[in-house]
This record gives sequence, C-alpha cells and structure tokens, in this order.
Amino acid sequence: MKAVRLHAKNDIRIDEIEKPKPKAGEILIKIGAAGVCHSDLHLIHMGIPDGAPPFTLGHENAGWIAELGEGVTDFQIGEAVMVYGPWGCGHCAPCQQSMENYCEHQSKSPILGGGLGTNGGMAEYMIVPSSRLLIPLHELQPEQVAPLSDAALTPYHAIKRSSSKITPSSFVFVIGIGGLGHMAVQILKKVYSATIIAGDIADDKLELAKKYGADYVVRTDRDTNSVVEEITHITGVKKCAVVLDFVGNNPTLVLGAQTVGLNGDWTVVGLGGGKLDWHCMNQPWGASLCTPYWGSRVELMEVLDLKRKGLIDIEYTTYPLSQALEIYDKLAKGQIKGRAVLTP
Amino acid sequence: MKAVRLHAKNDIRIDEIEKPKPKAGEILIKIGAAGVCHSDLHLIHMGIPDGAPPFTLGHENAGWIAELGEGVTDFQIGEAVMVYGPWGCGHCAPCQQSMENYCEHQSKSPILGGGLGTNGGMAEYMIVPSSRLLIPLHELQPEQVAPLSDAALTPYHAIKRSSSKITPSSFVFVIGIGGLGHMAVQILKKVYSATIIAGDIADDKLELAKKYGADYVVRTDRDTNSVVEEITHITGVKKCAVVLDFVGNNPTLVLGAQTVGLNGDWTVVGLGGGKLDWHCMNQPWGASLCTPYWGSRVELMEVLDLKRKGLIDIEYTTYPLSQALEIYDKLAKGQIKGRAVLTP
Amino acid sequence: MKAVRLHAKNDIRIDEIEKPKPKAGEILIKIGAAGVCHSDLHLIHMGIPDGAPPFTLGHENAGWIAELGEGVTDFQIGEAVMVYGPWGCGHCAPCQQSMENYCEHQSKSPILGGGLGTNGGMAEYMIVPSSRLLIPLHELQPEQVAPLSDAALTPYHAIKRSSSKITPSSFVFVIGIGGLGHMAVQILKKVYSATIIAGDIADDKLELAKKYGADYVVRTDRDTNSVVEEITHITGVKKCAVVLDFVGNNPTLVLGAQTVGLNGDWTVVGLGGGKLDWHCMNQPWGASLCTPYWGSRVELMEVLDLKRKGLIDIEYTTYPLSQALEIYDKLAKGQIKGRAVLTP
Amino acid sequence: MKAVRLHAKNDIRIDEIEKPKPKAGEILIKIGAAGVCHSDLHLIHMGIPDGAPPFTLGHENAGWIAELGEGVTDFQIGEAVMVYGPWGCGHCAPCQQSMENYCEHQSKSPILGGGLGTNGGMAEYMIVPSSRLLIPLHELQPEQVAPLSDAALTPYHAIKRSSSKITPSSFVFVIGIGGLGHMAVQILKKVYSATIIAGDIADDKLELAKKYGADYVVRTDRDTNSVVEEITHITGVKKCAVVLDFVGNNPTLVLGAQTVGLNGDWTVVGLGGGKLDWHCMNQPWGASLCTPYWGSRVELMEVLDLKRKGLIDIEYTTYPLSQALEIYDKLAKGQIKGRAVLTP
Repeated sequence: MKAVRLHAKNDIRIDEIEKPKPKAGEILIKIGAAGVCHSDLHLIHMGIPDGAPPFTLGHENAGWIAELGEGVTDFQIGEAVMVYGPWGCGHCAPCQQSMENYCEHQSKSPILGGGLGTNGGMAEYMIVPSSRLLIPLHELQPEQVAPLSDAALTPYHAIKRSSSKITPSSFVFVIGIGGLGHMAVQILKKVYSATIIAGDIADDKLELAKKYGADYVVRTDRDTNSVVEEITHITGVKKCAVVLDFVGNNPTLVLGAQTVGLNGDWTVVGLGGGKLDWHCMNQPWGASLCTPYWGSRVELMEVLDLKRKGLIDIEYTTYPLSQALEIYDKLAKGQIKGRAVLTP
Repeated sequence: MKAVRLHAKNDIRIDEIEKPKPKAGEILIKIGAAGVCHSDLHLIHMGIPDGAPPFTLGHENAGWIAELGEGVTDFQIGEAVMVYGPWGCGHCAPCQQSMENYCEHQSKSPILGGGLGTNGGMAEYMIVPSSRLLIPLHELQPEQVAPLSDAALTPYHAIKRSSSKITPSSFVFVIGIGGLGHMAVQILKKVYSATIIAGDIADDKLELAKKYGADYVVRTDRDTNSVVEEITHITGVKKCAVVLDFVGNNPTLVLGAQTVGLNGDWTVVGLGGGKLDWHCMNQPWGASLCTPYWGSRVELMEVLDLKRKGLIDIEYTTYPLSQALEIYDKLAKGQIKGRAVLTP
Repeated sequence: MKAVRLHAKNDIRIDEIEKPKPKAGEILIKIGAAGVCHSDLHLIHMGIPDGAPPFTLGHENAGWIAELGEGVTDFQIGEAVMVYGPWGCGHCAPCQQSMENYCEHQSKSPILGGGLGTNGGMAEYMIVPSSRLLIPLHELQPEQVAPLSDAALTPYHAIKRSSSKITPSSFVFVIGIGGLGHMAVQILKKVYSATIIAGDIADDKLELAKKYGADYVVRTDRDTNSVVEEITHITGVKKCAVVLDFVGNNPTLVLGAQTVGLNGDWTVVGLGGGKLDWHCMNQPWGASLCTPYWGSRVELMEVLDLKRKGLIDIEYTTYPLSQALEIYDKLAKGQIKGRAVLTP
Repeated sequence: MKAVRLHAKNDIRIDEIEKPKPKAGEILIKIGAAGVCHSDLHLIHMGIPDGAPPFTLGHENAGWIAELGEGVTDFQIGEAVMVYGPWGCGHCAPCQQSMENYCEHQSKSPILGGGLGTNGGMAEYMIVPSSRLLIPLHELQPEQVAPLSDAALTPYHAIKRSSSKITPSSFVFVIGIGGLGHMAVQILKKVYSATIIAGDIADDKLELAKKYGADYVVRTDRDTNSVVEEITHITGVKKCAVVLDFVGNNPTLVLGAQTVGLNGDWTVVGLGGGKLDWHCMNQPWGASLCTPYWGSRVELMEVLDLKRKGLIDIEYTTYPLSQALEIYDKLAKGQIKGRAVLTP
C-alpha cells in the first residue's frame, strides 16, 4: 500500500509498503481520511532521531475497522471510527481519565501517537495499538470528522479548562482566527454564553469570526496600547476572564498580558515562537498563563456530539494521498484554505 | 494617639494624631495587634503619590470594636475582631464572593486596604469603612491572629486554588521556607495529604520544614540540574502537581519551570524580582503559571478555624508601637525571626 | 402611600401607609415594578406568626434609588436597581459568597427577605436594609427585569449547580414548562449545549418549549413506564445527566427517579407537594436528589447579563397596584398567562 | 483448583474446578488475598438468575500476575497487582474516566465485576479480562490491601465527591463506625481538616472513632430530637456540611435529614434497607441526597497511596479458603471483627 513517510529532516516520500497485520490486541483501520496539520511541518523540519526508522505521517485519522487482532471483541469489522491522537501509557492517572495528552510518561517516550513517532494515517491502512484509542462514529463519515480530532479538540480542551470562568457576564478574547481560532469562536458561541471578542490582523478572518458568532472584532496589527484600549472599552475594568492566543508570537503575548483580567486565564495555544520577558508584575494578580496541549478522549467524544448536532462546522477540501507532498508544500506557503484532508 | 505613618519615600514617622471618629456605616477598632509585613518595605521604598496625604501603616490588624458608626448593628462594642486586609468596591463579582483581593476596580484605586494607601492599624485606633470587612474572633486573641491575616491567608489561598490537584498521589514542592513558606508546609500537612517536598538555601529552614511536616527536604543553592534530578528521583516521571514558589527570584523561577509536572500548577507568590525568559516550550504542557494575591474573606475564616483547632501555628514576637521604626530597620536587615507584631 | 399587605391567613388588603424613611445604612427604593409570584399564594395561605405585624408583599422588585440613608455612598439618587430577594445575615460563609439564599441563620429567622416576613415591594416605596442587596440595572428598565429576580434566577441557580454535567454529550430533562420551566429551557439553550427534553401535560406548553429551544418534547400525562421508555429511546442507556422537576408532584417525582442517569443530578424545584417512598434503591447509584432554593447575587448579575444580551425573554403583563387582590385571585385560578407585574 | 462458588440462592460450595487459561488480552492472577464483604451476603441471599452458570465469589482481590494472554505487554509475570472491582464497558464516558462504577451499561449487564456475576477471586487463580483493570502494587502485599479495594475505596469515593464542602470550617457527621465508617473517619482525618463527628449505637465503635481521629462522638440509639440537639450544639446553626450514613436504616435516614445543613451533602452508603417518606420539605434547601456506589480506579490509586504513606489502616484477619463457608456464616451473625481475608 502507499504511505506518506518521514525519512529524515525535510525528507518525506510516498513509499510503497506492506499492508500491516494487527497483532493480538491491535486493530487495523482502513483509513477514510487523514487531516493535514500545521504541526506536521514542525515535525518535518525537525526530522526523526538518529537511527530511528522512518514512519508514516498523519495524526488526524478516521476510517473503518478492517481487521481485529486476537482478543479484540468490542468493535466490529466495518464500523466507522475516529482514532484518538495522543497515545499514552494507558495506566497513569491522566491516562486513566482519558487525558493521554498529559500522560506522565510523555517526556520519556519518542512516540506521542500515530503519525507522531510511529506509523500514522496517511496510508491505506493503519494499526491502532488498543481499542481504547477508538471512538465509534455511528452515522458520521470519516472525512467529515478527521480534522476535528485535532483542530476542534485542541481549542475545545483549551476552552473547557476555563469553563467556570466563562459566564454570561464574562468576556473571552480569541486571538488569531485561523484553523483553530475559528473553531474556538464556534465552540464559545454554541457551548457557552460569554461575550466573544475576536482579534486578527486580517479583515477576512475577522469577517469569518463574525459569521461564527464573535460579538466584537478587533484588528490587532497596530500599536498594542490602542488595541488594549479598544478591548478595555468593550469590557470595562474587568477585562477578559479568558484570553485564548492561537498565534503565540511576540506581539500576541504582550497583548495577552495586558488584556487578561485579574484572576483570569491566559491560554497560549499557538506555537508562534514568541518570547516574553516574564516577571511577576507583568500578568495581573491571580491570572494563570497556561499552554494546553491537544485534549482528552472524553472531550473528543463531546466534540463529535457537537458535530452530530450541527453546532460546529469545519471547512475542508479532500485530496488524494498521492498529492501529499504538494499539499505540505502549499501548507508551508499558506496556500491551503481551511483544512486539507487526504483520502487514500 | 500615636500612629506609625508613611510620609514619603523612606520617610516613616511616629506621629501624634487625633483619635478618629466613625461616620455612619464605619467602625472604630481599638487595635490589639498589627503585624509587621515584608511588603511594607516595598511600600516604604516606593513612597506615596505626589500630593497624597500621609497614612498610617499596618495591614495585618486585629482588635476590639470600640465604637459603631450610625447604622452599624451587626457587631457589639468590645467584640474581638480580625480586619480583612484587601478592601475592594464591595459590588463587583469578585467582591460579591468575598474575593476583594481581586476586586475589578483594584487597578484604578490608590487604596488597596487599610495600611495600603489609607490609614491602617499601626496606631491605637483604626477606622474600618464597613462591617463586611470584619470577622469575629470569638475566643481568639488579637495578637495571636493578626499576622495570620496575611502570612497565613496568602499561602492558604495559593494552595486552595490548586485543591483538586493536591491528592494523596501527588507531590507539592514548596520553595522558600520563610514566613509564608513555613505556613504553607503546615497548611499542606494539616489540610491535605499530598507528599510535601520543601526546598530552601538554608539548613535551619529545612529543619523547620521537617518539623512542620515536610516529607522531603532539598537544598536548592546549587546547580539547578542536580536539584531537578533529586526532585525527580522523589516524584518519578510525574514530577510535582503543584510548585509553590515563595521566593520568586531568577533561580527559583528556573527551578519551578523544571519541576512542575504536565498539567500542573506553578504558583509564584514571592516577589523576589526574578525574571524569566518565557516561551511556550519552557513550561510543561498544560501547566499554569500563576501569581496569586492575598486571599478571600471566606478563606480567612477558614484560616481562623485552622488556628482555633490548633492546626497551624505562627511564631511571633510582640513589640510596643514606639519601636516600629527600629523593627522595620531590623526587618530590612533580615534580623527579625518569625513575625513581629506591634501592640499599641 | 398604597401597599398590598398581608394581615393574616388569607387576608390581604391594600392599605394606606406612611412613606418610609431610610435610617443610616438603609436605602429607599421607588418601586418601578413588583412581580407577582406563585409562592406568595403559599405565604397568603399560611398567614403570619401570631402577634407579628402585617407586612407588604412583593419579593421580585426593581426600581430607582429614591433616598440614601446616612453613610450610603455607593449608589446615587435616581439610579435604576434590582433588589436581590433573599436577605441573610451578611456574615456567614454562604452570605460572604452572595448566596444569601443559603444563609446559615435562615431557619432561625422569621424574615427571609423583603415581602417575605417584612415589607416588600408592592407599594410605592420600599426600604432595603443594605446597599449590598442592590444590583445596578444601568440601561435595563425595572418592569422588564423585576420578575427575573425569582422566575429566572431560581432555574438559573438550579441549572448552574449542575454545570459540570451539562455537556454536548448529555441530556437534560425539564419537567413542567410553566413560568420557571420555560425560563429553564431558554437558559439551557443559550448558556449550554446539552440536548434538552421538555415534558409537560399540555401541548401548548410543549409548543412553547420547542419555540425556546427544546430538542425533544414529551407528553407526561400518561403511564410512567411509557414516558420513561420514550425518554430512554431518546437518550439511550445513559439516561438524563440532569432532571429538573418544576412541578414536584407525585407523578413527576416518580418520573424523575426513573429518568435520571447514574451519577446524575435530580433537582426538584417545584413545590407541588409530592411525596416519594424513598429508599436507597429507587434512585440510580451516584445520583443526587436536591431541592435548591432561589439563587445567589452573582448568579442574578449573570441573569441580568443574559437579559442585556437578549438571550432570555420573559412574558409579562403589567397591572396597577390597585388590582393586586384580583391578580392574586386569578393567579390562584391559573388565569394568569406569563408573569403579572404590579407597577405602582 | 479450589473455588468458593455461588450455585443458587443460599447455596455456596467449595468446588474443585479447572485452573483457567487467559485468552488474548486477558490476564491470569494468582490470588494472594480475597476480602470477604458484607455485600456478598446480599448476593448469596438473592442467588443467580435462572439458567445462569454458578460463579466464584470474591470482589476484593489482589495477587500476582501468573500468566499473560496474548497481546498483553504492560505487565510482567510475578508483578503484584490489585484488581479493580467494578467492570464496565470500558468505552462510555464514565468508563473513559475510570469510573466503571457508573458505567452507562451497568443496568443492562448481569456482570458487575469479578465475583459479581462472573468468576471472582475466592480461588487459587482468577481471570481478569483486561489489563486496564489492574493497578500495580509495587512494594505493598496483596493481603494488606485486598479489602481496601472496597472497604476503603467506597468511603473514599463518597467523601471525595464532597471535597469542596469539607473545609477547616465545616462539620462532617459519620453515622455508623463499622468497616466502612471507621475507614471514613481515618480518611477524613488524614486527607481533610473538617471537624469530624462520629455517631454509633455502641460505645466500643465510638472509642474506635475517637482513636482514628473523630473530634466528637455521639450515641445515636435514643430519641432523634436529642441527638439532633447534641449535634447542633456542636455545629451551631450551620449544621453538617456533609452527612455520611454508613447504616441506611430508618432511624439513620431521619437523623441525616435533620443534621445536614443548607446546601449540604447527605450521602447514604449503607444498604440498611431504610425507607424515608420524602417530600421537598424534609431535607434542607440546597441539600443533596445521594447514594454513591464503590469508586473510580484513580480513586483506588489514591487509596493505595494513602496506604503506602501509612495514613490508613484496616484491621483484618486471614483465613484459608477452605473456611469460606464458616466465615460467611460468622459474618451473617456479626461475629467477624474487622475484615476477613481469604488466602488460598
């Protein structure tokens, strides 16, 4: 079968490899769709550890059960399933609560999930090591949902950890209305009732934010003080109970520090490489600066239910697997609109 | 009456002023004890805004009701009371929940409490603007409890916001076993059941930590890597669910970043002036870097109940008000052991 | 001035009384609107304790500041305000967190609020004992919001205590789509994202539920087993994470026990006089049977923000104070549609 | 091998059966200890469904890995493990969070765990269907911990769900100081800091409660009013934030209703067959009546850490498997002190 594989730093190839066979406890998935994610670019630029074998990319996967390893009895051949992306040890306290994104052994393991150190879903078939990592899709179709496993789950988790602060009386500031940011606006609109302020450097992104329910939109490509003033004019002295930064560069970090309120949550999701000269006086008293990662399996189940109810929507285009290299190239150049999804 | 007043930058004097008279709604407290706090030194070095009147220092106050302004009916003359320190607007959502430490109007007000911009408790009498700021002491004595209103409340609040992470299976690292840190160890020991690791640069402080219940003690005045290794040897891969930094200088900030676990709480209380070159990769995924401030009135009520039950203890020495200048001098030189308490 | 006063069991009169004068700390409110609430009927049927003086009814009040008692500085004459209904001691832990609905002294006090044991708002003017009990309305009008202080706050509180269980994956069953129930449906729809099932014995009420966002509606005036079957057909084995019973009679209690899921919240708000032969096997493991009462002041602030944003709507008709007796009569006979609001 | 098996209503036998063989995904445990639990008596009196096969009793199990079914790679032969008792579907939201005690499919399944509808641990060997149900014991010994898997986990869970209400200022009333109740007192003492009131009908039980840290003890075998008066004398008007009833008969249910405070948690764990004539006025406003069941796997991990730290202790006596029938007989007659543990 064909597979999009990372061989070394900046070296991805479409290889012909053997269709894998599930061992006892494993499951073979026939891939229906594999999302192409920005974070793959980081991976590709970093390469793989010396001596480690090449592996298939793709960590946003959905498909159908193709074959059950011995002992797997809780799924049936042909069932549509989502593959939960972060693969932990399965036994530590976070894993026990389906938060494998925070598995205690994460930092010691070279494998963070399928497509992240071991074979992922950009291939005709994929091995999933345990049925605990699968979620039944029922009537949903793999290509509709594959990108949700990261692009919706990550903002959903980032937002949900601040649930108690997102009330009808509070303001949430979403910085960066790209792939994750526009999902964040939708989730905030449909799952909560706070006032949503969206910030971006481009008018079309702000239009999108408005369409999905932002109550206010703010251009952020100008003097920080004037942005802060505009935000404070909207919120009053309380400022923003939650700031969600989906960019994470120098200017957005400074903006976050100045718009989050006392005792607020300042959440940086974007890996924009920003640096901050942090000292205890440059975030408000009681505020928390947090860098969440991906989400839990229960949260992914909730994301799928949001999709089922028609409450969230993700724009995507499907491409054949054979175009993978070209798509990564376009992604790096910012030429992909919405989400690209590979269908083998 | 005599009062210890801040006139300008580095200019404190013991003045003879008139005994104040409570207006409608106000209460006159006969001060029983006023704690001398490190943060006063910051205040003294900063001075007061141009044109602002001098004010009496002292924000850790307890005493007895001396006179009730018209309309105050919920306290009686002679009743022993604690004065809650942070004074907010009383109406915003945080104030409504007794968290005046996070009053939404805080940053707009030059007055943060009695002794913090307006007259405090280093005098024979003190005016408290509303009975909502008083807590009955019942059988407790003012001098026993005055310093708890800051030195115990601040760590209690810092710890309590992490309650859900402090389980029998988790590790809490307390950095800096001074006035607040040694209270933190006591609170952790008596109110929770996590494993407590105490870190300090002095052996006598670590001895104190052990006495109050630390399970492990670690000298931190050496190569950060070897400290981190020692901590990780204790905790295993999970590292510390909560790090409480009561120092806040450069080395402790670096230490915190490397000992807090995934999804952990990294709480910086100490105002040690440390700076951190923050970027999204130098704190673990999911961890929160927070700078809490003081505590809520309900938390102070709980602190008083801890004292009532004999679960916490604070070392203090009483001095007459007339020695205030000398005490501040000693405090600045690090010559005060435990807490100094002025008794008029 | 005219006032609707309870003199004894089933004895309400419109009296001519003197306009009150606020003492120090008190505030005189010029009433803009006073909601007529079902719970007043209970009060009227019970009467007042022997020897107690008659008092003015009305516990859903809004108006304008008419006069400030000495020492009140945080409001201004003419400002529009909502009166928070449950009046506690102001000092116990629940009161400190604005939950005067659960004031620890409640059971010892004959006065539960204005209109509930002491003079309320069915008069031209009303005394409020402390400014802490007032919430600024800003641009909102008293008659728009007076009934929200109970009819919206009570369901809002009942729902909010179950927040963590109301997810995109869970089902909430609202029994009884009357005054409070139809507010509950709106709140659930706008503030959360769970699937809403509404139950009632009348089709027009179910139509109303649908209009306000119920995902499913169920007629409940039939064999309980078949209702339970219909609900379980919707929810699957998990049943309802939350059941909100706004009726509270025998059949609805039985229905609640059988539709709430394992570890769910079974919340009885309606005072329908139902009895239940409770034993540990007739509610699912982990489920909680709770009878919440009214709500907190912070919750009321959030309710007002929902109104401000146009997210909730209450149907009401205004009547002159002079028609109060007639309105209570109609209310008892079920002839009032929506909420009746008296305007002096 | 020998196994204690339930054949029918009141028919238990020690059978000679074949040593089982683990299939793919399963694990064979060499039993080190199997606790004898009161709830087995209910099971024995109820018997098994018509046509269902006999099964081995024992749901409090610990031992060593004897054999790994194909595909099980996360444990090693010889490792000491605890068997988590409630076995759910493994996929629903509660199971995903290790709360298999509230598995959504529970009510549809005749098997609630090993020893509860299918073969348990009162035998030389036991099959566990998935490694997710095992917790490593490390240095702990099976016989020390087997009974903790129910007798400590059940109160730990019952208490933990009320964590936010168990503060230094609150009172917790533990009714019934038997096997679970005396664990509850220990847990409350070591993991929290509330004031503990213990109630029982026997002085030796109250002595035990005192030994384990109860602050107050109360004889409950007398007029309810006078017990309530005594409790209220201790607590003041606030009454008990949490009531934990480990008896669950008629008098304790009445006692619970009258001692739990406003907004408190009234938790009935004991299956004493009590009935209550429930109506909305016989529990305080805001209070919750809950019947929790067993506990989660993460909670069991925390219980084991409490044991590791020496914070809890359970009194037990070991007996050979061959005495099982005799032990059940004694248990029914109340002649077993502490916990009986069978060692094959």
